[in-house]
Amino acid sequence: MAGVGEVIDNKQVILKQLVNGAPKESDMAVNTSSISLKVEEGSNGLVVKNLYLSVEPYVKIRMKKFEHPDFSSFTPGSAMDGFGVAKVVDSGRPEFQKGDLVWGIVGWEEYSVIKNPESFFKIHHADVPLSYYTGILGMPGMTAWVGLHKVAAPKKGEYVYISGASGAVGQLVGQFAKLLGCYVVGSAGSKEKVEILKNKLGFDDAFNYKEEKDLDAALKRCFPEGIDVYFENVGGKMLDAVLLNMRLNGRIAVCGMSAEHNLEEPEGVQNLRIIIHKRIRMQGFVVFDYFPQYSEFLDDVLPKIREGKIVYLEHITEGLENAPAALAGSENVWKQVVLVSRE
Amino acid sequence: MAGVGEVIDNKQVILKQLVNGAPKESDMAVNTSSISLKVEEGSNGLVVKNLYLSVEPYVKIRMKKFEHPDFSSFTPGSAMDGFGVAKVVDSGRPEFQKGDLVWGIVGWEEYSVIKNPESFFKIHHADVPLSYYTGILGMPGMTAWVGLHKVAAPKKGEYVYISGASGAVGQLVGQFAKLLGCYVVGSAGSKEKVEILKNKLGFDDAFNYKEEKDLDAALKRCFPEGIDVYFENVGGKMLDAVLLNMRLNGRIAVCGMSAEHNLEEPEGVQNLRIIIHKRIRMQGFVVFDYFPQYSEFLDDVLPKIREGKIVYLEHITEGLENAPAALAGSENVWKQVVLVSRE
Repeated sequence: MAGVGEVIDNKQVILKQLVNGAPKESDMAVNTSSISLKVEEGSNGLVVKNLYLSVEPYVKIRMKKFEHPDFSSFTPGSAMDGFGVAKVVDSGRPEFQKGDLVWGIVGWEEYSVIKNPESFFKIHHADVPLSYYTGILGMPGMTAWVGLHKVAAPKKGEYVYISGASGAVGQLVGQFAKLLGCYVVGSAGSKEKVEILKNKLGFDDAFNYKEEKDLDAALKRCFPEGIDVYFENVGGKMLDAVLLNMRLNGRIAVCGMSAEHNLEEPEGVQNLRIIIHKRIRMQGFVVFDYFPQYSEFLDDVLPKIREGKIVYLEHITEGLENAPAALAGSENVWKQVVLVSRE
Repeated sequence: MAGVGEVIDNKQVILKQLVNGAPKESDMAVNTSSISLKVEEGSNGLVVKNLYLSVEPYVKIRMKKFEHPDFSSFTPGSAMDGFGVAKVVDSGRPEFQKGDLVWGIVGWEEYSVIKNPESFFKIHHADVPLSYYTGILGMPGMTAWVGLHKVAAPKKGEYVYISGASGAVGQLVGQFAKLLGCYVVGSAGSKEKVEILKNKLGFDDAFNYKEEKDLDAALKRCFPEGIDVYFENVGGKMLDAVLLNMRLNGRIAVCGMSAEHNLEEPEGVQNLRIIIHKRIRMQGFVVFDYFPQYSEFLDDVLPKIREGKIVYLEHITEGLENAPAALAGSENVWKQVVLVSRE
């Protein structure tokens, strides 16, 4: 490993230009720049060596031109970034020491300078795979846990529906809800994903929304008693169908509305007035607000991982140079991770 | 007053047939039937003499054909009903005594048989006008109080917007919010109503939504800092405009969506995904669920009425025979009440 202070080569994944539609491998390039491994004089930042990078929708969205109050598009010509696991090489602040393992937002590169490590978490439990901190023990896992336990708060025996259920978040929501004693149904966009939900992840039922002519009928088939909790990843027509099937005092945790992402004119939601007589609570949430509760999350989820109570499927691509292909091709139920370095 | 046991004439307002659109006076008839003033042997109901009847949208809606889980259309040929104030003439249960003043759902008639008085409230405070128990101290007042304090829960200094603000509920929401120290803006459908909101009811600002080409711009003008709490009576395009102007962690108490009442195909709501990054909570509610908290409501609101802190405008029509005209013509900011009998 290169010593502190040295200036060395730094391989990076660069976004060539902002994209429209699905990102292609050719929208990115792997370049080499150089980096000093010593924190700048007077800085209280970090220099880290990146070990794992998370391949996820959040990164794809940021390759497009859009406006959002919480995050922004990547800058063409610069390294992309996203959640990752890293090792501290040099630190300008006492909370972080050389050799510490951390997770947070890092560049898609071998080494990163972290100017503001306030939202970085130290990794204290390395008996589970470090890559888990890009997924089940990182942002997607925390999102699932917060949305289910803190926002929707289902009780044992309640009926829980998850759209986009095969995604990194949705599949954990379903498993957390099963561990709580709920009846859990998910929807996804392919037969393969539906099979995995039912046969590998322990969902009580699942359906392929692309094969259902009538979403309302599909939900009535899966939930003859109605839905207590809906974990919303989709929006639009799916939400309209769900509203028709919600039970009294139902809760809708709104994590995302992916159906609206690529639409100039979003689909209108027609059935909103149902929330009055059904006394429904819809709550939008953003995981970052709950980061102060990360240790409570770990206390709950780490034992479940160690005891094998959660199925967590990863697909690891080795080598930063293969990250563009991994991102462009990612459309899977396995959590996609790029291994940059083993240590 | 007629004695118990006697069978006497009972004037009633009858719905001739279910209506489409706005009810007309000619849709109703005033008939006379007969009634025994003694509770039937073995019944634990009441016979009451009606004093005041509430003229309100809830009654108009029930003159139409519709399906709703919480209430139903009137039966043509029978007396209409709605909230009213009455005096007990005979009682089959010990909680109610002859001479007690009560409020609850009674027939639009001189005397009513109440088979299930479980949801009737006894009136213990008659130092305020009895007619108030059809409005500010009855269902509309409780709706305003619950929606504001229990559902939206604004804090002092927050920005509160109320659509349908000149209605019986909306004008109280605004005044309750002002007493809490909020900045309050309402919208209504005429210049006259807007003037009353601003000049009589103490709203900080108000606008006529029918004269605004761009609701988003109107809200930006009234709320340059954005909206913390929206009390929703309207739905549709108004909700879309409000969503664009909500502040972080905003709350939307959904009381009604009147814009959708008369539409075969409801307007779609396009901007719902805003609730995610703004962390907005939308909560539908029905006042009946909160009736167990009625005494807490009285403890809060009665002193405010006695101290003259709330402006409450009533328009009283004398005589049951004038009820059909009062209902058909009601389109006012004053609470409309029919005086059936003074005692």
